[in-house]
Amino acid sequence: MYELGVVYRSIERTDCATADALAALGSATVHEAMGRVGLLKPYMRPIYPGAQVSGTAVTVLLPPGDNWMLHVVAEQIQPGDIVVAATFTDSTDGYFGDLLATSFQARGARALVIDAGVRDVRTLAEMNFPVWSRAISSKGCVKATLGSVNVPVVCAGMLVHPGDVIVADDDGVVCVPRALASQTLEAAKKREANEAEKRARLASGVLGLDMYAMREPLSKAGLRYVD
Amino acid sequence: MYELGVVYRSIERTDCATADALAALGSATVHEAMGRVGLLKPYMRPIYPGAQVSGTAVTVLLPPGDNWMLHVVAEQIQPGDIVVAATFTDSTDGYFGDLLATSFQARGARALVIDAGVRDVRTLAEMNFPVWSRAISSKGCVKATLGSVNVPVVCAGMLVHPGDVIVADDDGVVCVPRALASQTLEAAKKREANEAEKRARLASGVLGLDMYAMREPLSKAGLRYVD
Amino acid sequence: MYELGVVYRSIERTDCATADALAALGSATVHEAMGRVGLLKPYMRPIYPGAQVSGTAVTVLLPPGDNWMLHVVAEQIQPGDIVVAATFTDSTDGYFGDLLATSFQARGARALVIDAGVRDVRTLAEMNFPVWSRAISSKGCVKATLGSVNVPVVCAGMLVHPGDVIVADDDGVVCVPRALASQTLEAAKKREANEAEKRARLASGVLGLDMYAMREPLSKAGLRYVD
Amino acid sequence: MYELGVVYRSIERTDCATADALAALGSATVHEAMGRVGLLKPYMRPIYPGAQVSGTAVTVLLPPGDNWMLHVVAEQIQPGDIVVAATFTDSTDGYFGDLLATSFQARGARALVIDAGVRDVRTLAEMNFPVWSRAISSKGCVKATLGSVNVPVVCAGMLVHPGDVIVADDDGVVCVPRALASQTLEAAKKREANEAEKRARLASGVLGLDMYAMREPLSKAGLRYVD
Amino acid sequence: MYELGVVYRSIERTDCATADALAALGSATVHEAMGRVGLLKPYMRPIYPGAQVSGTAVTVLLPPGDNWMLHVVAEQIQPGDIVVAATFTDSTDGYFGDLLATSFQARGARALVIDAGVRDVRTLAEMNFPVWSRAISSKGCVKATLGSVNVPVVCAGMLVHPGDVIVADDDGVVCVPRALASQTLEAAKKREANEAEKRARLASGVLGLDMYAMREPLSKAGLRYVD
Amino acid sequence: MYELGVVYRSIERTDCATADALAALGSATVHEAMGRVGLLKPYMRPIYPGAQVSGTAVTVLLPPGDNWMLHVVAEQIQPGDIVVAATFTDSTDGYFGDLLATSFQARGARALVIDAGVRDVRTLAEMNFPVWSRAISSKGCVKATLGSVNVPVVCAGMLVHPGDVIVADDDGVVCVPRALASQTLEAAKKREANEAEKRARLASGVLGLDMYAMREPLSKAGLRYVD
Repeated sequence: MYELGVVYRSIERTDCATADALAALGSATVHEAMGRVGLLKPYMRPIYPGAQVSGTAVTVLLPPGDNWMLHVVAEQIQPGDIVVAATFTDSTDGYFGDLLATSFQARGARALVIDAGVRDVRTLAEMNFPVWSRAISSKGCVKATLGSVNVPVVCAGMLVHPGDVIVADDDGVVCVPRALASQTLEAAKKREANEAEKRARLASGVLGLDMYAMREPLSKAGLRYVD
Repeated sequence: MYELGVVYRSIERTDCATADALAALGSATVHEAMGRVGLLKPYMRPIYPGAQVSGTAVTVLLPPGDNWMLHVVAEQIQPGDIVVAATFTDSTDGYFGDLLATSFQARGARALVIDAGVRDVRTLAEMNFPVWSRAISSKGCVKATLGSVNVPVVCAGMLVHPGDVIVADDDGVVCVPRALASQTLEAAKKREANEAEKRARLASGVLGLDMYAMREPLSKAGLRYVD
Repeated sequence: MYELGVVYRSIERTDCATADALAALGSATVHEAMGRVGLLKPYMRPIYPGAQVSGTAVTVLLPPGDNWMLHVVAEQIQPGDIVVAATFTDSTDGYFGDLLATSFQARGARALVIDAGVRDVRTLAEMNFPVWSRAISSKGCVKATLGSVNVPVVCAGMLVHPGDVIVADDDGVVCVPRALASQTLEAAKKREANEAEKRARLASGVLGLDMYAMREPLSKAGLRYVD
Repeated sequence: MYELGVVYRSIERTDCATADALAALGSATVHEAMGRVGLLKPYMRPIYPGAQVSGTAVTVLLPPGDNWMLHVVAEQIQPGDIVVAATFTDSTDGYFGDLLATSFQARGARALVIDAGVRDVRTLAEMNFPVWSRAISSKGCVKATLGSVNVPVVCAGMLVHPGDVIVADDDGVVCVPRALASQTLEAAKKREANEAEKRARLASGVLGLDMYAMREPLSKAGLRYVD
Repeated sequence: MYELGVVYRSIERTDCATADALAALGSATVHEAMGRVGLLKPYMRPIYPGAQVSGTAVTVLLPPGDNWMLHVVAEQIQPGDIVVAATFTDSTDGYFGDLLATSFQARGARALVIDAGVRDVRTLAEMNFPVWSRAISSKGCVKATLGSVNVPVVCAGMLVHPGDVIVADDDGVVCVPRALASQTLEAAKKREANEAEKRARLASGVLGLDMYAMREPLSKAGLRYVD
Repeated sequence: MYELGVVYRSIERTDCATADALAALGSATVHEAMGRVGLLKPYMRPIYPGAQVSGTAVTVLLPPGDNWMLHVVAEQIQPGDIVVAATFTDSTDGYFGDLLATSFQARGARALVIDAGVRDVRTLAEMNFPVWSRAISSKGCVKATLGSVNVPVVCAGMLVHPGDVIVADDDGVVCVPRALASQTLEAAKKREANEAEKRARLASGVLGLDMYAMREPLSKAGLRYVD
């Protein structure tokens, strides 16, 4: 966040199998598996519903109203990456549209997570290129000022390092640090394993109060019932 | 709103036939029929489009980032209820997901109205369990602090008593107090009755200016035309 | 903006062929063709996805929570118009619903752009009457206070004169002043002409860095690469 | 909230001695004494710093951009009252200025709490008439539509009944229901009684960890220290 | 708003005596005298309380995060001017600080009204150079992209032409178009003339209900009293 | 940000002389000296004007509505520290008041920077204990859930490591990473050195256009003047 005008070409990506496997678990389960941390702020929304992806983060830091660096980051994309774009100051400008998406997709990017605006959203949906953004805006950008590529960035309130895993779906976006990716995958799978059974029991009418043995702690906390 | 740690088990629900009949009229017509009152703030949005429901309110008051009481309220749900969840302070955390929805649905709940966030929204849509919320967020909750069930709550700026009728659709959410439900239903039906005829006249090119006899009051208010 | 209680009946509309032709180019291309100006703020969102329209602006200025003037403006609509509604103060109230939409559509209006709220959104979608608004709300309005019709208005931060062209799609809303419409259409077509070729090159893996010859200016600006 | 066009002249005010005594304790202590409930949302801010008041609520419900009812409520003010004004929909308009303040002050009102805007704030400060509001705005209002006086209102997210006690200072605004006023005063005094001693101990360097015996519960909750 | 990269050197300023005389009347009275129009949005706040000014508008349009044009506009300032700065897109960056203020003040500017952020606010207060802004921020700007000077701008939702009168105080900011300045001054003086008498009557306990003869219209509108 | 329930007792603080010297330069100059990075979002505002401080960061991560960890962090404070508090999710609750401030001050803390709310603001001002926060709120907190102390945190959009330098004044808050503190101090002093001379020249009427030699680059960028 403190270096401007620099592009780091060599980054350590999370192991590909781990990064890929996290998509199926979804942002909520992965976030819980990490101890309820790692989420980007909930104003980050998908531009169309239904996409669920994971991949390794390539990061880019953008000046206000200036998308020059998105062309620079394109060259650093490898198949399986997700571009994570942060800005120096809050912006809703449309930094990204169908041409850049074509380029990103050609390079193998799976998605864009951008703490700013995007445009050409109907075309992006047709291209099946998912984006999570804070805004949709036709507003175009200039190309006059440098930012940086593959430095750590704070995107929508969360620190993201190049090579971390990003998991995104209709519920939001979570960042899994590279060092925690493997254990997070294991923990998330375990959480997932129990869900089907729990769901069946709840569907049959069993209450969470009983299934999770909450009646006693609730009573100890002072809960009282009035008829 | 002033009692914490208490669950009221006996509430007086609006008569079932009345509560059910309000759904078809929709939130806008019902709100007009009440004299243009009763609406929750418009930041309350459906997590998927197209749902239109009504039902009797079961209320729950939630501490910040803590969804323990949603398990407590589940036990108080009766078929035809809509759970109305308020928080002590503004929150976008994801208090509710597919497991709780499974439990609520098993108990007969028709919907959730929550002045906070929810998650697992794709699964909720597949389950056909509608939710109106202020946010969508993967953010999970703890289970450490008590709130209350079936106390009056202020949800998204509107006072809701247990047993009131909730009507919700793509336009928003309205609360009909139990004591006004019957007369509101009658008034809303009357409004509805005229709509088809009005729509036909407007579609034929008749102006509202003439249909509603507005030209004279507009002129009296001082409106002037310039060619 | 400074005259209240007045309806201008005679406005000079942008030539119809020009106004119509801008729709296909979309808000982002048109905004770029104007030199990156003319956009309404990005909080203006379509109530359903997929609509893409252009037309000549008929303007209306609305008091808080009062939609009387929408009936007045209906009479001034000509086929091919888009109604642009501004308010004296920020509001999310539902000024517009299916009855007014029926009337507007019968008069030949193509869309409504309103810096406030609307309701009956499901019906509006079924009617195929597109609306761009800042909010969706069941909240009804009174009919007690005058505004004006066909005065210049500031709608969502942008000045709109009666007769200007409005272009709106999923990316947002742009206003093209009447005097600039013809040249904007030409400029937008030129931009569009190059897009297909650019897209093909980017899809083949060519980088924007090379296609736009950015490497040298980036280097001059001080960009450095670190391995 | 559901009755429009009505003025209740007879309300039961909280006993005067109790209402007056709560001012000195402040909004934070009173809110804690009630079990951490009763606060209006924190966007309610004083128009000048340093005022600290309590009084009995006289309530008024206002249409959007229309302050007619503020003249109506003036007549219902008794010495020691605080006027609590809510609106049908969110508004920042300037409903209240120095003339109304002169009238309110002449009637004995101690303050205004309004979930909207006010103006003439420099004069109000000179008059020593405190206001807590969501906005400051020169925007004037019309006088065309009815609201109500002395009905229950939701003001900044909190339910206020006529006759409840309002306590307001630089930290915010709290509503104490009439039925809880006496016990809240006692509880608040008790909290206050310990504060001086606690402050002295903390000032001498004693840690809250020790003073409140938190080390054991923190350790049980799993807190660990790393050197 | 549609021309970039241009500086208009010759503008017609409102007559100096008129522009100066409006300050004493204040933003609320002037806005009322214009028929309740002309206000900038209420998020525009003074950086320190107590300033009350009027002057002729010199306008400047600023790109996101780029304050180059503030140096350009400085040259166009004449004694008695107020600089009105708008941006292409919403920004809270600190476009203006003590050095620019020194320059503006040396040129004779009375104030800055900027729909963005400023910094060095303590020094600005010491210099007695008033600013109305949407934000305070240390965030600095680049100097890379052109805007325009003395074109019409939309600042905080209001259209401002070069040469219009700006009136600003603790209640907000109002723009009086040049063509309306003289009549607005007369109307505002008339409003002001009655205020002292009204205030005296209200202070003596006379109710607005009686002073403004509101009881009959309220009754006609349906207001009823309940004891 | 990823470790919960842990307190790091040994942190490397920036050298004391460097940390202390940065206060006098102010947040704007320091941020510029770092290359225009390092600022917390501008919604962070001082609770009273005029304070200008610097110090070494001690960090704390707080659960929603739960201030238990503020008692834990108190023990880790050393003279010259500034406590930087972040939360898991956005909150305006009042996590901090006069008792905690007494304790912090007794431990030698110079200020609190908290991305949430505080209360007892009048007393804090009397104590001369400065706070930068996103909100002021009477809302109290529970003590039920763990966070962490002296882990890296994202506070108001900026990454802060324990031991970094915080500089805060009326313009905002900037974080200087420990490794950059010394060079930042030098760079900031150099910027400051020129300011007095620049100010004198601008005060004498010299334009920034000439002082910074902007006329040629503006002309090259295409700026044109119209009389």
